[in-house]
Amino acid sequence: MAPTAVDVTSSAINAASSAPLKTSKLTSPTAELHPLDDITPGENNLAVELIRDYHRNDGFEPWFKAVQRQEPRKAVLLQWLDAYHAGHKPAAIPRKIEVLYIEPASARIHEAIVDVASQKVESHSVVQGNHRTNLDITQLEAFEAALVQDPVVKQALKELGLEPDTPIASDPWIYGADSFEDQPYLMQFLMYLKSPRTGYDGDTFHYSWPLPFVPVVDVNSGTIVRVDWCYTGDSADGMVHTWKEGWARSNMEEREYMPHLQQNFQPRAGLKPLIVQQPEGPSFTVKGKSVEWQGWQFRLSWTAREGLTLHDLRFKGRSVFHRLSMSEMTVPYGDPRPPLHRKQAFDVGDASCGFTANSLSLGCDCLGAIHYFDGHLALPSGVLLQQQNVVCMHEVDDGLGMKHTNYRTNNPYVVRRRTLVLQTIITVANYEYIFLWHLDQTGAISFEVRATGVLSVSPIDAGKTSPYGNVVSRGVLGTNHQHIFCVRVDPRIDGDGNTVHYEDSVTMPFDTEADKLLNPYGTGYTVQKTVLEHEGGVNLDPLKNRTFKITNPNKINAISQKPIGYKLHLPATQLLLAHPDSVAFARAEFARQHVWVTKYRDDELWAGGKFTNQSNGKQGGLATYSQAKEGTVNEDIVLWAVFGLTHNPRVEDFPVMPVESLMMSLKPNDFWETCPILDIATSTQAVNKSILVQPSEAEAPSCCKK
Amino acid sequence: MAPTAVDVTSSAINAASSAPLKTSKLTSPTAELHPLDDITPGENNLAVELIRDYHRNDGFEPWFKAVQRQEPRKAVLLQWLDAYHAGHKPAAIPRKIEVLYIEPASARIHEAIVDVASQKVESHSVVQGNHRTNLDITQLEAFEAALVQDPVVKQALKELGLEPDTPIASDPWIYGADSFEDQPYLMQFLMYLKSPRTGYDGDTFHYSWPLPFVPVVDVNSGTIVRVDWCYTGDSADGMVHTWKEGWARSNMEEREYMPHLQQNFQPRAGLKPLIVQQPEGPSFTVKGKSVEWQGWQFRLSWTAREGLTLHDLRFKGRSVFHRLSMSEMTVPYGDPRPPLHRKQAFDVGDASCGFTANSLSLGCDCLGAIHYFDGHLALPSGVLLQQQNVVCMHEVDDGLGMKHTNYRTNNPYVVRRRTLVLQTIITVANYEYIFLWHLDQTGAISFEVRATGVLSVSPIDAGKTSPYGNVVSRGVLGTNHQHIFCVRVDPRIDGDGNTVHYEDSVTMPFDTEADKLLNPYGTGYTVQKTVLEHEGGVNLDPLKNRTFKITNPNKINAISQKPIGYKLHLPATQLLLAHPDSVAFARAEFARQHVWVTKYRDDELWAGGKFTNQSNGKQGGLATYSQAKEGTVNEDIVLWAVFGLTHNPRVEDFPVMPVESLMMSLKPNDFWETCPILDIATSTQAVNKSILVQPSEAEAPSCCKK
Repeated sequence: MAPTAVDVTSSAINAASSAPLKTSKLTSPTAELHPLDDITPGENNLAVELIRDYHRNDGFEPWFKAVQRQEPRKAVLLQWLDAYHAGHKPAAIPRKIEVLYIEPASARIHEAIVDVASQKVESHSVVQGNHRTNLDITQLEAFEAALVQDPVVKQALKELGLEPDTPIASDPWIYGADSFEDQPYLMQFLMYLKSPRTGYDGDTFHYSWPLPFVPVVDVNSGTIVRVDWCYTGDSADGMVHTWKEGWARSNMEEREYMPHLQQNFQPRAGLKPLIVQQPEGPSFTVKGKSVEWQGWQFRLSWTAREGLTLHDLRFKGRSVFHRLSMSEMTVPYGDPRPPLHRKQAFDVGDASCGFTANSLSLGCDCLGAIHYFDGHLALPSGVLLQQQNVVCMHEVDDGLGMKHTNYRTNNPYVVRRRTLVLQTIITVANYEYIFLWHLDQTGAISFEVRATGVLSVSPIDAGKTSPYGNVVSRGVLGTNHQHIFCVRVDPRIDGDGNTVHYEDSVTMPFDTEADKLLNPYGTGYTVQKTVLEHEGGVNLDPLKNRTFKITNPNKINAISQKPIGYKLHLPATQLLLAHPDSVAFARAEFARQHVWVTKYRDDELWAGGKFTNQSNGKQGGLATYSQAKEGTVNEDIVLWAVFGLTHNPRVEDFPVMPVESLMMSLKPNDFWETCPILDIATSTQAVNKSILVQPSEAEAPSCCKK
Repeated sequence: MAPTAVDVTSSAINAASSAPLKTSKLTSPTAELHPLDDITPGENNLAVELIRDYHRNDGFEPWFKAVQRQEPRKAVLLQWLDAYHAGHKPAAIPRKIEVLYIEPASARIHEAIVDVASQKVESHSVVQGNHRTNLDITQLEAFEAALVQDPVVKQALKELGLEPDTPIASDPWIYGADSFEDQPYLMQFLMYLKSPRTGYDGDTFHYSWPLPFVPVVDVNSGTIVRVDWCYTGDSADGMVHTWKEGWARSNMEEREYMPHLQQNFQPRAGLKPLIVQQPEGPSFTVKGKSVEWQGWQFRLSWTAREGLTLHDLRFKGRSVFHRLSMSEMTVPYGDPRPPLHRKQAFDVGDASCGFTANSLSLGCDCLGAIHYFDGHLALPSGVLLQQQNVVCMHEVDDGLGMKHTNYRTNNPYVVRRRTLVLQTIITVANYEYIFLWHLDQTGAISFEVRATGVLSVSPIDAGKTSPYGNVVSRGVLGTNHQHIFCVRVDPRIDGDGNTVHYEDSVTMPFDTEADKLLNPYGTGYTVQKTVLEHEGGVNLDPLKNRTFKITNPNKINAISQKPIGYKLHLPATQLLLAHPDSVAFARAEFARQHVWVTKYRDDELWAGGKFTNQSNGKQGGLATYSQAKEGTVNEDIVLWAVFGLTHNPRVEDFPVMPVESLMMSLKPNDFWETCPILDIATSTQAVNKSILVQPSEAEAPSCCKK
């Protein structure tokens, strides 16, 4: 296998064909931009026009998937950043726009780089091999609207004994591959009835009415190529179709979540308002996409695939991370019965975190003193989609951050824990992911995922149960599934040259007389250090308290005499359950181990491979990135952290699921020579203005009143 | 081994000797009390006087360790509670006071039960065997004051080349046992210098000046029986004493944490006030120690050993837990070199969570609209110690609790996550534990520990390092250690008769043709259920997503057709590292496995045994409780959840340690027939009154402004 699974053949560049366009107008001079500033509307227009012009004789109109500022090559960028932070005015790095687009009829993928200053297409290539970009909402809406009118679907309804004009809904789904052979470009749709009572309302909840057929659509032709039927029985039925004509409507029942549609909605009484005020304003300052807060300095970026990314993170003037991002997730379902075995989404690569981001709302998604960041992304037409409020940022009081009471004087020392939270929320059809970055005053940064939204369900004969899920509503199986996330951590721990190692805490031997010379009472334990010398993946081992650290071996902590570093707190969670011989396993390379280290290479951002849609093991990912086993000691390296939920649904998770939360953290470890929050003022009532609440009712005679 | 390791011989009760005392006066008629109401001051005085009178001819003055309301026997209590919740007025359960006390000269332990109505000592016994109660602050303060004046200590100072009047401090420490043989009743002291600059101040930080000797005190005689000297070298030095005369002062240096003592204290700029307001008041109501909030009903109690306990927890009218408590923790240190191998504290049993609780302060320990609960406990003299504000309770906005956006209409449905938090904080000499119970609106309850305070340190020759810890200040070793906690969960999941099982998620086979009939693409997984049929312990297995559930097999969820239940979210953490052949291992029975189930027996509350102080494996605990392997299916059972930190210190953890947090949760699982928070009103800005923050500075031309 080649070092990257994606075979890109550069085509010759015809400089003449991309001469400066008179019509393009840059809204801001690029010289004023930070090299990490997102693409400007002017740059977007320039790139779109140049690409269109480049292909003007090629017989197709480019269908844009991503038009964005190419990150400057890291070697160049680091020099610029160091000069910038040293107070110099380094020369601008030439801005390049990277453009990903397809030919609409064939879905053939093109990639190009546009140079902004010269207004030329600098490089162009056609991606070779059987790859697909993400599906986009423009495509999906068109398919979805056509599907419910399609005679093939109407015929399927008839087979179920339903009238052809029965109101139905369809959810587009990625066609998770099920063959190592290359396949046509397909997608599938999960089909639902609509409630006879609420179906008139756009917010009717169709997920309690799953239908047992799955139309499969050829993406290029836009036609249904076949209808797959689902098994709706229990384990005794096995692979026998048990649904019957007339089955559908009586097998299930209406469930609603929107208050105006819930029957007999009785809001729970007694919840009083809770208001967070910052009368002197927030503690952060924002300039464009640059943020400063409590010693932190960092920048945000917004891209089609990753949505929110963080860059050039420094704390108290020292670099800590160069780039942080949610690289990929895989969501495989555990029901092996066709056609639902194909449900394995890669929601970053297949769907895009940028396009699916929610526009967040003050007082609803975000409480307190909120700053919003907007984004914009090129639609398939090249026109900019303006995205308001895709990231909210605010401060949180997270209880106590540190306390000590000297019992001799009874004098307490209390420091509260203030955090800065950046939140973005994506909706991937039925499901929601809430992504939160939490920065704290010690220099730690955490990434939290809150999973919510609606379970992806399948039909089951009413009264039966299944080994592959839990019945969450009459005739509705909440299928067991996993969500496995991979966060990409590009560290720069106080400068260049970083190393990853892990430490296991192990019991000292206590068997021989020699052992007892060192460990006379059997109480001792030691810490075994293993350096990750080469690219590859390693598992957590919580019973050994295995702890990963990223250190800078060139900087020694004067107190501990150990390299300065950050440690990773990563919950030990289950890895991919799909069988190692399966396609599902092959395509989710990252989900096989908990922690990976690779050498830094520009553009290697994708834990599950660059093209995940319908991937079948030939699209790369972390195993591919790391297969050359290059040295990773005191190098420019990347750490990839993998964690997830095995979600075997509860009845409580339907119709909408209360959040399940997972968090990973990166904390300074011998990075400082003292506790880094000793400079935070002690908490006082004078500042915090809390309210003493007396008992709500006259108290019965009680033991505790004096 | 007997079913309980504590051999209690009941002595005959002389009813005549405990005739009603004319002087005792009950401040409130017991008939008005709830059976779970804590002891009243009047009951305390009654019990103390009765016990004194009982021993009036025995030649000793009782030294009280615990005087508290005996919990009514569960069989009786459950009947009372069921009648009470059904709206009846059940007859009062006779109130009993349980009294634990020692003979001061011998530390011989007595236990007695006082009947309040008859004002008699109902039973009395002397605890047989070599056991010790917790140390109390009255003892410790006396020892500590005497110690710094003791000629033996002055001689030790002289050996270090220090003047005998050098200002020093001492920290009392439990004498963690190091022999399976019974030993005299001992305790040990860790010794420190005081800074020449700040030593005049009561809040001087002595922990940066550890001295290499440990006086060992006979508790009964109050005399120093010997001085043990510490090894201060590195691994090359092994067990050779390397400290030298004159070493102490120059080996270490001053560190301070209190702002008024820090040199050049520069408070970090820019942290703006954050105020939490509830203009309509909190959403909870309190009546005595009974709380109602968002469908929850429960009671608090306050005892010497456990501090805060929760009782009779119901959600939306259905019982969920009968009693929740922090049962025990063990804190073993990993440095095997004598005498520090003895550092293994059981901070609940050795020190008491009730007596060491902080008096919490408005706006400092607690932010928002705060209700405080007070407590009172009998001092050794029998006089009540009034404890103000030992528990704070308030509401928290914890971000989003549920969200779904219908991408077809773009209508969001957002429910914020409000939680009710009860916090108590204990100071155990150098260290602080913050215990938090979090209740949420779904019926879930979580227990969080935040570890903070000052590391327990030891001296090391300046410039050397150690395999047993991290140097956190010049000449100061932050020793590697563990904190392993055990939470006792006495469930009552919608009534009596509960069962614990665990579920592993496992890959389906995909090897043979028969396998492929069921799992044609290798994507399937199933859930394997294992019932804990008998008492005992089991480990977590995160790579199998092992999930423990407590169910009520007598109640079937109509939707899923499975027993209703709660599931346990427990972080998979390292168990006890002490060698299985060690005393340290023998005395911490609970710390060997993650989850234990025992049959309910009254008074079996102690995961590490009833008497942990200087225990040596004969004092019981969970292995002892469960050794009869009684049946636990559809029974009155108790689940014990074990989790902890292996804390190998960072330099950042000194002089005071930023909190490290651990959380376990109990969540309804098929307990309800729908999502339990569908009745929470959607979040709105009209209620939440958030503030939109504009960029702080004039923005540079940016891509993101329209």
